[in-house]
Amino acid sequence: MRALVKTGPGVGMELQEVPLPTVGPSDVLIRVQYAGVCGTDLHIWEWDSWAAGRMLPPTVIGHEFAGVIEQLGPEAEAAGLLAVGDQVTAEGHIICGHCRQCRTGHGHLCRRTQIIGVDRDGAFADYISMPATNVMTLDGIPPEIGAIMDPLGNAVHTVLEGGDVPGETVFVLGCGPIGCFAVGVARAAGASLVIASDLNPTRLAIASAMGAHVTLNPTSDDVVVRIRELTQEDGADLVCEMSGHPAGHAQAFAAARLGGRVNLLGTPSQKTTVDFAREIIFRGLTLYGVTGRKMYSTWHQMQRFLRADQLDPRPVMTHRFPLESIEEAIAVIKDGTAGKVILEVVP
Amino acid sequence: MRALVKTGPGVGMELQEVPLPTVGPSDVLIRVQYAGVCGTDLHIWEWDSWAAGRMLPPTVIGHEFAGVIEQLGPEAEAAGLLAVGDQVTAEGHIICGHCRQCRTGHGHLCRRTQIIGVDRDGAFADYISMPATNVMTLDGIPPEIGAIMDPLGNAVHTVLEGGDVPGETVFVLGCGPIGCFAVGVARAAGASLVIASDLNPTRLAIASAMGAHVTLNPTSDDVVVRIRELTQEDGADLVCEMSGHPAGHAQAFAAARLGGRVNLLGTPSQKTTVDFAREIIFRGLTLYGVTGRKMYSTWHQMQRFLRADQLDPRPVMTHRFPLESIEEAIAVIKDGTAGKVILEVVP
Amino acid sequence: MRALVKTGPGVGMELQEVPLPTVGPSDVLIRVQYAGVCGTDLHIWEWDSWAAGRMLPPTVIGHEFAGVIEQLGPEAEAAGLLAVGDQVTAEGHIICGHCRQCRTGHGHLCRRTQIIGVDRDGAFADYISMPATNVMTLDGIPPEIGAIMDPLGNAVHTVLEGGDVPGETVFVLGCGPIGCFAVGVARAAGASLVIASDLNPTRLAIASAMGAHVTLNPTSDDVVVRIRELTQEDGADLVCEMSGHPAGHAQAFAAARLGGRVNLLGTPSQKTTVDFAREIIFRGLTLYGVTGRKMYSTWHQMQRFLRADQLDPRPVMTHRFPLESIEEAIAVIKDGTAGKVILEVVP
Amino acid sequence: MRALVKTGPGVGMELQEVPLPTVGPSDVLIRVQYAGVCGTDLHIWEWDSWAAGRMLPPTVIGHEFAGVIEQLGPEAEAAGLLAVGDQVTAEGHIICGHCRQCRTGHGHLCRRTQIIGVDRDGAFADYISMPATNVMTLDGIPPEIGAIMDPLGNAVHTVLEGGDVPGETVFVLGCGPIGCFAVGVARAAGASLVIASDLNPTRLAIASAMGAHVTLNPTSDDVVVRIRELTQEDGADLVCEMSGHPAGHAQAFAAARLGGRVNLLGTPSQKTTVDFAREIIFRGLTLYGVTGRKMYSTWHQMQRFLRADQLDPRPVMTHRFPLESIEEAIAVIKDGTAGKVILEVVP
Repeated sequence: MRALVKTGPGVGMELQEVPLPTVGPSDVLIRVQYAGVCGTDLHIWEWDSWAAGRMLPPTVIGHEFAGVIEQLGPEAEAAGLLAVGDQVTAEGHIICGHCRQCRTGHGHLCRRTQIIGVDRDGAFADYISMPATNVMTLDGIPPEIGAIMDPLGNAVHTVLEGGDVPGETVFVLGCGPIGCFAVGVARAAGASLVIASDLNPTRLAIASAMGAHVTLNPTSDDVVVRIRELTQEDGADLVCEMSGHPAGHAQAFAAARLGGRVNLLGTPSQKTTVDFAREIIFRGLTLYGVTGRKMYSTWHQMQRFLRADQLDPRPVMTHRFPLESIEEAIAVIKDGTAGKVILEVVP
Repeated sequence: MRALVKTGPGVGMELQEVPLPTVGPSDVLIRVQYAGVCGTDLHIWEWDSWAAGRMLPPTVIGHEFAGVIEQLGPEAEAAGLLAVGDQVTAEGHIICGHCRQCRTGHGHLCRRTQIIGVDRDGAFADYISMPATNVMTLDGIPPEIGAIMDPLGNAVHTVLEGGDVPGETVFVLGCGPIGCFAVGVARAAGASLVIASDLNPTRLAIASAMGAHVTLNPTSDDVVVRIRELTQEDGADLVCEMSGHPAGHAQAFAAARLGGRVNLLGTPSQKTTVDFAREIIFRGLTLYGVTGRKMYSTWHQMQRFLRADQLDPRPVMTHRFPLESIEEAIAVIKDGTAGKVILEVVP
Repeated sequence: MRALVKTGPGVGMELQEVPLPTVGPSDVLIRVQYAGVCGTDLHIWEWDSWAAGRMLPPTVIGHEFAGVIEQLGPEAEAAGLLAVGDQVTAEGHIICGHCRQCRTGHGHLCRRTQIIGVDRDGAFADYISMPATNVMTLDGIPPEIGAIMDPLGNAVHTVLEGGDVPGETVFVLGCGPIGCFAVGVARAAGASLVIASDLNPTRLAIASAMGAHVTLNPTSDDVVVRIRELTQEDGADLVCEMSGHPAGHAQAFAAARLGGRVNLLGTPSQKTTVDFAREIIFRGLTLYGVTGRKMYSTWHQMQRFLRADQLDPRPVMTHRFPLESIEEAIAVIKDGTAGKVILEVVP
Repeated sequence: MRALVKTGPGVGMELQEVPLPTVGPSDVLIRVQYAGVCGTDLHIWEWDSWAAGRMLPPTVIGHEFAGVIEQLGPEAEAAGLLAVGDQVTAEGHIICGHCRQCRTGHGHLCRRTQIIGVDRDGAFADYISMPATNVMTLDGIPPEIGAIMDPLGNAVHTVLEGGDVPGETVFVLGCGPIGCFAVGVARAAGASLVIASDLNPTRLAIASAMGAHVTLNPTSDDVVVRIRELTQEDGADLVCEMSGHPAGHAQAFAAARLGGRVNLLGTPSQKTTVDFAREIIFRGLTLYGVTGRKMYSTWHQMQRFLRADQLDPRPVMTHRFPLESIEEAIAVIKDGTAGKVILEVVP
């Protein structure tokens, strides 16, 4: 089969012919239709220090995808919930299932997690083999949307964790693809006021298309002042920090109401200087670090929103390329103008 | 001033001239614009056993209203959040503020609660005096909607208590005014599927107008079977029991999913025979008895929904009468065809 | 190997020689040291209507046990958390792992649950084969205590579900073995006042030994009046209903404080007549039906309590018999005087 | 009456004769028996930049106290829950009661809070006047303990907020008086393992006396390594950060388990450099900034623990002085060797 392979250290990936993956007793073989390209794939392409420190090439890349089940291992078949021909996507974090994290509702934080396309072969290929427990049926969700449920799930996790959203003011700070998804999730979940900020007007336009009531651009708006005005001086009940920038952190804390929440998904490459007393303690804030998707309550909520047409991520999906055009896909992501980029494998 | 007074035992109420209410140091005097008529007012009109056992006439009736502040006591003024001319409504449960219930977030269950229009003079009058802490500013909410925020708040409490609603299936069992409000609240809060049932087609039409995706009539539908079909055999995540009928209880338990929730607002006049093992324990259900509105988180959520136009209760508001036509207002409620009935005091 | 087998309809069980169980790729073979005898085993022995309706003999009985790992299937071995020689116990509910219940933290309510000793071969035998995910290491917990962690877990689930226990008043209504365990769990969890009631003085003595501050006997005490006296008229914050009797339900509701919680574990054979308005709704109660153990947060909490010596269930463990004396074991349970009864298989 | 007054800018306080405080309609006049001296009082004594920026002398100092009710305003009397002669303490944060924070369970974060002894006259005096809603009856709690329920409440808030404590590992980082109280609260609340750290061996000895299972001194222990060893590599479920030092923050994040919680009470005077990606986000941590006491659930929990003898703060109470010896009291606090210091006003 065809696969985009990180063959070794250095920039780039190679489209190669590789053998079909093996299918264990609890596994499912999936023919890939669409795959999403993520910032992580850019890090791998560039072979930055994170990639060099974590990966052991050769590895088939790609962790966001949807496709059709072609084959089931005997235990996967016996479980009786999946069948050949089902259109599916999958949680890309393969966890141990036995540790304390896995056993007490924190599987997304399992120390022994293997991520497809990073720690084992991934989805930029004609076929991928996945444990059946990780596989989610689409049941009517279009497969190109199924292909981006991994990052959409990050947004669902960020917005819905830790408190009620109906009636609340949600401030999404940073409108990359996951930030824009978060805007749509907040609207679907009944937020009364959704405010989005970014430096990039193209991204703010996508955030508006996803349902932001107000968009703010720090180049022209005093973001914290504007949020206070929009909230009768209260501030935002929930801030979704999606920028990963130290300036974003300061703004997130200042924009939250007293007793409010700041859910942090953006992963900064720099350190942030924090005045814990004034920024967090005296303001009674709760901060939460978002990793992955809760397994599998996040998926359940996302499926409900998508099937009920409460959430449509398509305004964020700006580019599509065939598998062989990975270089162009990486280029538009690097360029910063893209929303979500999709690879068409065998649609 | 004019007031509808329950003058003593027996059927009816009288429109009388009575003195203006006194305004204590922490109180606010409100000129009433609109008032809502409630099933409780029907019990008082009829002087049933509940009314006879609880009330000590003469009492001005009415506990749902909106109006304009005319005067503030000195401590209410010093608090600085209310002013003459503010359009307001009020929580009609006046609680002690000092007991354990009041001090730990359960003020709606204060043993020493006094209800306006029942235990002290109420709002079917030109003026009412209320403690400032009970008063809520409307800030743009139309006063005729302000007048029904007490029962709307019952619906908000019923739908939002005890778990997340976004993405969930909510079954509203019983489509009186508060049931119909609950349909709208569930939609505002991001429910993915809202199912409503009632024996009365007029009420089901109102439920549809409030946003129910599906309406069921037990005279023609097997309600539990239909809910299972609509939910891939799961059942409803949340059942709002608004009928107060033993048959409703059985249906509520059967319609809930395993591990689901049943919030009970309808107050039955009969007892119910329950098979706790099969109906509740083996199904892992959580039941919650709804009394009043949480003070004041329910009000906050409701204000947000109304101000953001996520919730519009007007389809439920079917009749309006002047204060002097209380007999006609009581008659349409008794008749069972009305949604919510409003008294126009001095609009 | 030896096994106690329900060979077919009718009273009794038979000690037979049967083949060793098969060990699948994800399974673990355990040599049984101790096993607990449960009320369920009495139902099976008696072949009552529940047993006749559910079981398909021949079946090896027993669902509470502890033992030593003798063999691991290849996937169980690869998981790397269990080893030959480990002293272990196991969750006896084998769930599908793929359904919505299993995937969203409600695995204890999986519709496809198979219970060992009921739906498949159990633990009253020299060996049992279990899925590795169900197996819990004892790590210093004595194996005779490991053998009763299934019912102890029921108590942990009942006491800890749905709200904070530290500082609270907990009323345990019904002092069978799980009720007595619940007393100990409530003390371990920091309850300030633990009250236990039962008709049987022997059981009340065990409840006292487990740490009940006060014991009440309905034959001589007005239980609800006494609880109000003991709580400055508040009532109990949490009632654990372990009696499964309609009179217990009424008392549980009346003994709970306004806004309190009633967790129901006792499974009644009769129906209960409930006045929902007065007993539940106007009192703002929350009821929760307890099934099994939460998988696996209940186990984690229980292990912590046992390893830290915060909880010692041994006062409840009143009788021990060898495997072949099952008839005597059943007799002391039927008699009603026993606490927890243990079978010594191969200690 | 006698009162310790901050008369104006500069170091020190003066014992003066001042008029009795006025008692408003909702107020209570309390004769002070004991008062606690707090680090805040040291800031006021020293007149540091915080004190200079916040206070408007002359002000009677002191916000921790217990005493006896001497007089009630008419509305306080009418409330019927307090009486002359009652032994009481009080919440020292006087909040507005009308704002969104106050109305939705976040009164401890009211923007219009007035703190006694800081923003209005305090408790280092023969008498203090307090709003009745702020007053708590001792009901058997010794008044010298009543005098320190303000800081003890900070510890209760820090330990009990945001998750279950029974069975958990709690790490208290920093053993000043509130840290030592937190050790006792964690034990009372059923923590299975309580670890405390400090640089000062005297403070560690107090922490041990309060029930710490393990004490660690960073001068000789690698605190994070030791906590991992003590927790089978998991880390602490809850870290109570009581040091307010940047090094404490780093250690708190590293010592928490994946998905664990860090409740921050220590208020740093310096900024902290945080690697949000590695320290918080990838570890799935929840941080919470602790301000004051929750009004009044914290008080309720604390009263329960004290009345049930689950918590005895006396090992922390190391010094007592008469009111006129304030200079010595301030000196022992400044010195760093004291636990909690009490002023005997008129015992």
